[in-house]
This record gives sequence, C-alpha cells and structure tokens, in this order.
Amino acid sequence: MKINLERLEKNLKELSLFGRKEDGGIDRSLGNEAEEEARSWLLEKALDMGAAIKIDAMANIWINWKTNNSDNKPITLGSHHDAVSDGGMYDGALGVLMGLEIMQTLKENQVPLEHPLQVVSFTAEEPNPFQISTMGSRGVTGKLTLEKLQASRHLITGESLGTAIKRAGGNIQGLLKAQVGKKDMAAFIECHIEQGRNLFDNKLSAGTVTKITGIYREFVTVKGEANHAGTTRMEYRHDAFLAAAQAALVVEETAKALKRRDVVATVGWVEVNPNSANIISGNTKFIMELRFPGEMVKQQMLQRIEKDFLKIENNRGISFQREIILDQAPAPMDEGIMKIIGDEISKEQTPLSLAAEESSGLEFINHVPMLVSMAGHDAVHMSGITRTGMIFVQSIEGKSHCREEKTDGKDIEIAGNALLNAVLRLDKELTNENLN
Amino acid sequence: MKINLERLEKNLKELSLFGRKEDGGIDRSLGNEAEEEARSWLLEKALDMGAAIKIDAMANIWINWKTNNSDNKPITLGSHHDAVSDGGMYDGALGVLMGLEIMQTLKENQVPLEHPLQVVSFTAEEPNPFQISTMGSRGVTGKLTLEKLQASRHLITGESLGTAIKRAGGNIQGLLKAQVGKKDMAAFIECHIEQGRNLFDNKLSAGTVTKITGIYREFVTVKGEANHAGTTRMEYRHDAFLAAAQAALVVEETAKALKRRDVVATVGWVEVNPNSANIISGNTKFIMELRFPGEMVKQQMLQRIEKDFLKIENNRGISFQREIILDQAPAPMDEGIMKIIGDEISKEQTPLSLAAEESSGLEFINHVPMLVSMAGHDAVHMSGITRTGMIFVQSIEGKSHCREEKTDGKDIEIAGNALLNAVLRLDKELTNENLN
Repeated sequence: MKINLERLEKNLKELSLFGRKEDGGIDRSLGNEAEEEARSWLLEKALDMGAAIKIDAMANIWINWKTNNSDNKPITLGSHHDAVSDGGMYDGALGVLMGLEIMQTLKENQVPLEHPLQVVSFTAEEPNPFQISTMGSRGVTGKLTLEKLQASRHLITGESLGTAIKRAGGNIQGLLKAQVGKKDMAAFIECHIEQGRNLFDNKLSAGTVTKITGIYREFVTVKGEANHAGTTRMEYRHDAFLAAAQAALVVEETAKALKRRDVVATVGWVEVNPNSANIISGNTKFIMELRFPGEMVKQQMLQRIEKDFLKIENNRGISFQREIILDQAPAPMDEGIMKIIGDEISKEQTPLSLAAEESSGLEFINHVPMLVSMAGHDAVHMSGITRTGMIFVQSIEGKSHCREEKTDGKDIEIAGNALLNAVLRLDKELTNENLN
Repeated sequence: MKINLERLEKNLKELSLFGRKEDGGIDRSLGNEAEEEARSWLLEKALDMGAAIKIDAMANIWINWKTNNSDNKPITLGSHHDAVSDGGMYDGALGVLMGLEIMQTLKENQVPLEHPLQVVSFTAEEPNPFQISTMGSRGVTGKLTLEKLQASRHLITGESLGTAIKRAGGNIQGLLKAQVGKKDMAAFIECHIEQGRNLFDNKLSAGTVTKITGIYREFVTVKGEANHAGTTRMEYRHDAFLAAAQAALVVEETAKALKRRDVVATVGWVEVNPNSANIISGNTKFIMELRFPGEMVKQQMLQRIEKDFLKIENNRGISFQREIILDQAPAPMDEGIMKIIGDEISKEQTPLSLAAEESSGLEFINHVPMLVSMAGHDAVHMSGITRTGMIFVQSIEGKSHCREEKTDGKDIEIAGNALLNAVLRLDKELTNENLN
C-alpha cells in the first residue's frame, strides 16, 4: 500500500493557489480572503472523502474518519493551512494534506483500523497580524485565555480576532468547552518540512524529530546616558547602543561556543533611543532569544551571559534591565512514536554510508536521522496533552517562510509512505498496549 | 571699562522666559510663538539702545551701531537666539546678549570705535523641526539653495519654511541678494558656552577656540541575509545587525585608540530590518559620525575603519554599502583674532599653576586654554567669509542642550570683559593693519 503522490501533489498545488501572488509568494493568514477560501476548499475535500467535519471554537478544522472501533480515541495527523506573509506552499500545508492523503489511501484500501483517524488543520500557526502564533493549538490546549483573544485585533484592518474567528466558523466564547485533553486523542503526529538544512545537506528525504526546541526570550533595556556626540569625550560616555552591540555579540558567542546543532541565539529586534546621528544613545532596547534542547544548556548559556553582561555594565557604566518574556521548555517527542516513525522511515529511505553518517554531525538510530526541531510547531502544544511525534521532510536548501520553499516529490513519497505505515503500526501497538 | 554683569544676567533671564516650560526646559525654535516673541524682545532691546536694525532674507537679525568711521566694514559679534527642544538659557543666547552688552557698554562710555559694531542673531542654529540647522548662517554664506529651503516643512505643523521665515521677518526668495561676503564684515566673533568639560574640569572661566571640529558622516547599509532565528545554525548566518554591532565597536575603538581630546566617533542612529525577535536581520542601517581636527586624522581613522570593516565583511559574509552624507572640514579660527582673544582672557583670568596646566591635557598659550570646539556653530560658516574667532565660557559640568545648562556670573564677567577689550584691540589693529 502506497500513498498516491500524484494526488497529494495536485492537492498541494490547488491549496497553494489560495493567496498566491504574481511573484509566487503566498499571503494566507487568518482574517484574509485566501485563508477563508482555503478553509472552504479543505472542507470540500473532506466531504468528498465522506469524512465527518468538526470546527471548534478556535476554528480549527477536525476531519474524522470513523473506523472499526469508534469508541477508541483517534489517532490524529495534521498541521496548519495558514502561511507566513510571502510564504511558500509546503510549510503547514504538507502536514494537513499528507494527513488527508493517508486517510484517503487507507479508505481506498479499506484498511480496518482499530482507531478512528483524524486530520486536524490548526488555525493561525504562523506569526500573523493578530500577533498570536500557534493560536489554534494553544487555544485548545489551555495556553490562551479568553481575555487575550478578546483583546487581539488585526494590526492592519483592525478587525477583532473574535470576528475573524467567527467568520472562519469558530466562536471564541466557546474556548473553555473546546479544550482537548488526554481523553480526546490517542496520539498526534505532525508531518512538516525541515526548516533547517540537516536533511538537505545529507541528501536525506526524512527524519524523525526527537524534541522541539525550547525558546527563551528576554526584553533587555540598556540604560546609559544620552549626550552630545561632539562634546562628550570618549572616556566620559555611557553609550547604551554600544553596550547593546557588545551584549548581542556576547549572545552570539555564547551560542557558538557550545558548538551544538541544537543551540542558537539571536538578537533580531533592537530599538535605539533617541536614535539621532549626533546624540549618544542613552537608552537602547533589544530582545535576546535563545533556543536550546534542555534546561541545563539554557542555564549554562544564561550563566555566561550574566557574567559577560556584568563586565559590560562595569566597563561602560551602564545598566541592563532584563525581563523574561518567554520561557518555553523544550517539548520532547514521545519515545514510542519516535521509534515507530524511525523504523518506518528506515524501510523507505536509502541509508547513508557509515562514514557519511559519522561526518554529518547528526545522530542516527537505525540509519534514520534523529532531529531536534529548532522551529516551534503546533506539536509543541499537542505534546502536552497526548503522545506526540513529528516527521520531517527535506526542504531544498532548508528554505522556508519564503516563496522559494520547495520539496521534491520523491522525498514527499518516502515520508508519506513511512507515515502511512507508522499509522498502521501505531494503530496496532496502541491496541495491543491497550494504551488508548 | 567693564561690562555690566547685572544687566547682562537680567537680559539672559528675560530672554529665557520665551519658551520656558514649567519643568524649566526651553522650547524656542523657528516657527513657534516663543521664538517670535524672543525676536520682538530682541528688536525692542536694540531700538532702546538706538541701534539700527536689519532683518535679512533668512530672518537673521543684524543690529548695527554706526560709529566714527562708518565706511569701514563692521566688527560683528553674535550667535543665535533659538534653543534645542527642552534646552537651556545660555546656548546661543549668551553670544547674542553678550554682543548687545558690549555694544551698550561701549556706547555708554562713548568709546570712539573706528569700525561699526554689529550684533547678529542667527535664525535656527539648533537642530529644529525644519531639519536644517545653522540655517541662518548657512543661508547667507552660500551653503543653502532656494530649492532646499522651499522643500522644507515643519515636521509637526507642516508649515512651509518659507512661511515661517516670512512670519519672522525674512523672505527666502531674497536668498541670493542676502549673501554676505568679505566686503561686508571685518571680523566675526562668537561667544558661546563650552559644551564639553575642559573649562569646568580645570576650574577655568574662558578659553579661546583654535578650530571648530570637522564632521564626517556616513550612512552605512549592511546587507546580510534574513533567516529563521531557530532553524538557521550559527555558522550559516549572515546577520546584518551583528555586523553593524561590530562595526559600531570598531568606530568607537578607532576614536579611542587615538587618545585625543579633539577626536570622537559615534553611532547614534541605527535601523534594524526586519526587526523581529525571531528573524535574523538581513539588512541593518546605521550612521557613523567622526569628529576630527584635520584631514590627516580623518584619513587615519577612515583607513582603520576600512580595514576592520573588510574583516567583518569577510568573516560574516555580509557587505557594507557606505555613502558619505556629510564631510564638513574643520574650520580653523583666525590666528590674529585667536591671539587677541587669548591675550585679553589672560588679563582677566587667574592662571592655573604650571603643574595643573600640564596635567590638564589641554594646550595653553600665555596661560589661556586653546580649545577645539567639538560642536558645530554659526562661526563655522562665518569663517568662510571673514576673519572669525570664538570665545568659550565655562558651562557647569559641561552641560548643554538641557534645562540644567548653567554658567556662573563670574565666568560670564571674565569672558565678557575679555571680549570687550578684544573688540577694542581688534578695532585698533584692523585700523593699523588697514586690513578692513
């Protein structure tokens, strides 16, 4: 039994037309017309398959195929159908349509599953003008309050989030009743393009995800002394921007020194005040972001940063005020699902030579790369409520969030067949373990 | 013969009321009501003294006292009556009112000068919402075009500069006819508070200015590669902001390494793009400013910057695009006037001990500190058309451009009497040299 690559690629292409601009980029985010059209298209696809549809309070789309034993909790596949501004056609879409393709393949082959199969397409996973990302999955896993939802408005149109969700078929007032828990799902697997270059650099089609990175953000305010850029001698200066510049380089060096693939650090947002060519900055703000595989590594980084920031404070007579604005722990994937996905990938994918595996810098089990996802996903939030796994598919040159995003059909096919068989195995194992 | 300090301080106080806010800061810039009221007050003062008034195309106020030989070119004293936003009561005002005080003292004492004495108050010297500073002095010395003036509007009110100038008594259409040249003036002397700490740190009242700093500005665009802050490994990044951070530190180090009082360098304006916490900056812009005493020092700095920027480009795989947006040569003050001012200060001011002079880091001639002005002044532009000098008066803690700006009466008196006698000497020497 194989997935139908031709059908899947046709669906990817059809979905990509919603929001596609002349230059090839896709604008499809909650609140715009393309996003609504994409929803209608998805629902039609599901109805054509004879699946049951539920749209929850967050406007997440749940597509259900009731199989043999419909009292069992469902196995859920999925991702999201929205795209970043000027985005590509695989991020999110691949996970949703792969789920539908597997559902359709199983139905066509009349495979008697013991668990209902479910495909979910989450609302507003990407950064979006309502400024709440992974909105749908956070919403139904208890990570968002009604107050936060009610306060959100579209940055450009000013439309309230509640109205946009309503137009998409949801109703934020139903947030509490829409919560999804352990009792609602046996497992969740998200198929997604790898947004880094690990698979591409090693000419591999797919890998299994071991964990999703932790993300830690601080909003740092540097207080120095604004002064005349001409008459203030170099030794009398307390330049807040230069202190921030040094701090950003410390943040970079802290990540580089660890020489790990699963650690990065970034200063991507900076505000210099008063921001005038002839005034020494008295106040500069920046956001420092760390991504890390575990608490110990995070602490190790923060210790070095603390020490080096103190040196900057002393040398420059400035002060850093640091406020933690995000501290999201790494989300480990379920060991059992990780193994099943790995096993099934190993049956589909030509292994690297041992030498190539060794020089790749990656970890392999049974010749399958075990990857840390350095990007956040809906799976982060699902992992809090059910056994969760992810399968990564190669994206050419690791590109994502851009119109050049591209994944080869052969890679999709290998990952798809691995996932198809992983679902079958999972269905059996869950039944045997009586774990559902 | 002495200036009347009490009268001068009374005038300073009266002028400071125009634009004075409750918190003590002064808002008096071209286009606002306070600036117009200050003009009326100045004109009234001049008329009370029996002086003749001319307002030129740029709305600069010229106050003339025709003396013995009115065919001679005038000796001109002056500065500006506007203030930076939230500014203090001495910057600019002291130079104008000191000029009037000297004129009045000479008149009262019926001193028979061989040269007409003139006091000028220039329009819009400070950074202002029309975004043209030293506007009046640049306007009448050929450094501004009618097109530039016509294009300028008040950033907040939207009023055209032409209208504001007209309300102030000028007419930008007359720009060409208002040009001032060698034939119109025998000499120009500007009295101004020192905006650095050289005089304050050494408990000196006044010093003579040897030159006004050169100012060089580049608009630098760093082109890197915007990328995902999670999935892009540290070694694959081309972070435009981090390159800018390193560049700013190079600029600082370049100035510091020279260990000169007359060299500073600043990066005060920075724009990070796309400026998002989770996107590596693909494009960062900054303005680099160097201030320097001469072309050789500037070239020395630029050579090091060039070399170090190249290293950053190579190490980070980014590129710097550099555009010169200002290249204002240092303005040397006239040797003869510098000497006269120095001589006259030395007669009024208690000298430092030789040991204190040596440890001060300053240059002295005849116990008078020879200072480089690290801020720009109207005198920069006047130096292009006439013999020009500046006398600096101590500002407590070197403060300026702030409501805390303060100068002691005794320092004003010492500088004022020195300038009074300098005018008398200059009048004689110009006559003897037949140089006017």
